[in-house]
Amino acid sequence: MHFDHAGIATNDMDGLKTLFSDLFAAPVVHEETFDGMRVVFLELENGYFELLEPHEGGPIATYLNRSGPGIHHLAIETDDITAAIEHAIECGVEPIDSEPRQGAWGHDVAFMHPKTTGGVLVEFVSH
Amino acid sequence: MHFDHAGIATNDMDGLKTLFSDLFAAPVVHEETFDGMRVVFLELENGYFELLEPHEGGPIATYLNRSGPGIHHLAIETDDITAAIEHAIECGVEPIDSEPRQGAWGHDVAFMHPKTTGGVLVEFVSH
Repeated sequence: MHFDHAGIATNDMDGLKTLFSDLFAAPVVHEETFDGMRVVFLELENGYFELLEPHEGGPIATYLNRSGPGIHHLAIETDDITAAIEHAIECGVEPIDSEPRQGAWGHDVAFMHPKTTGGVLVEFVSH
Repeated sequence: MHFDHAGIATNDMDGLKTLFSDLFAAPVVHEETFDGMRVVFLELENGYFELLEPHEGGPIATYLNRSGPGIHHLAIETDDITAAIEHAIECGVEPIDSEPRQGAWGHDVAFMHPKTTGGVLVEFVSH
């Protein structure tokens, strides 16, 4: 499988967007408001940073209150997200999303429960 | 710049190695004991997972005690790690390593202080 992006939770979208685009030579390629969050994608040569800033509560706000800003999830690209979910279940992983749903940037996504993936919030994503 | 790997802190190397290699079709490509840690690299199509299990205390043990298992750092590959450190300082980032040092797998590495990078422990790595 293919690394797609690292999701980063932040309370300072403008500052982090400016810093990361400069620090990593990673231009902003997509911005939107999705599911109560401001979402910005920065493009690396072989993947993305997805910066996430909550503005209406929700899971990212909860995460920031509990853990502070930082790496929130890792997204792995797959051509067949339904097959990836089924294989994850066979591996003993508990899906948060047992079927693909629409995520940011119009992608299909499915998250896996970090309790069952070594503490890593894993997202499967299909473009 | 280029995504290289996500570093994952774990207390269950054997379990996580088996799970991730199966879940992500990511074969084990390197194992070593480095700096008081057991280190395993799993290869994705465009990067790696670096699994880190402490066996003699050290920063990963401290991290696990404080935060539990999960994503510890993100590593970005660069051809010129010294230039990357200098550029980071220009961006207002505080280096943990102000000069490259030898990391796992014989790579040159330099970590940046997460206080100055949005809570993300950033590693610059040169193979």
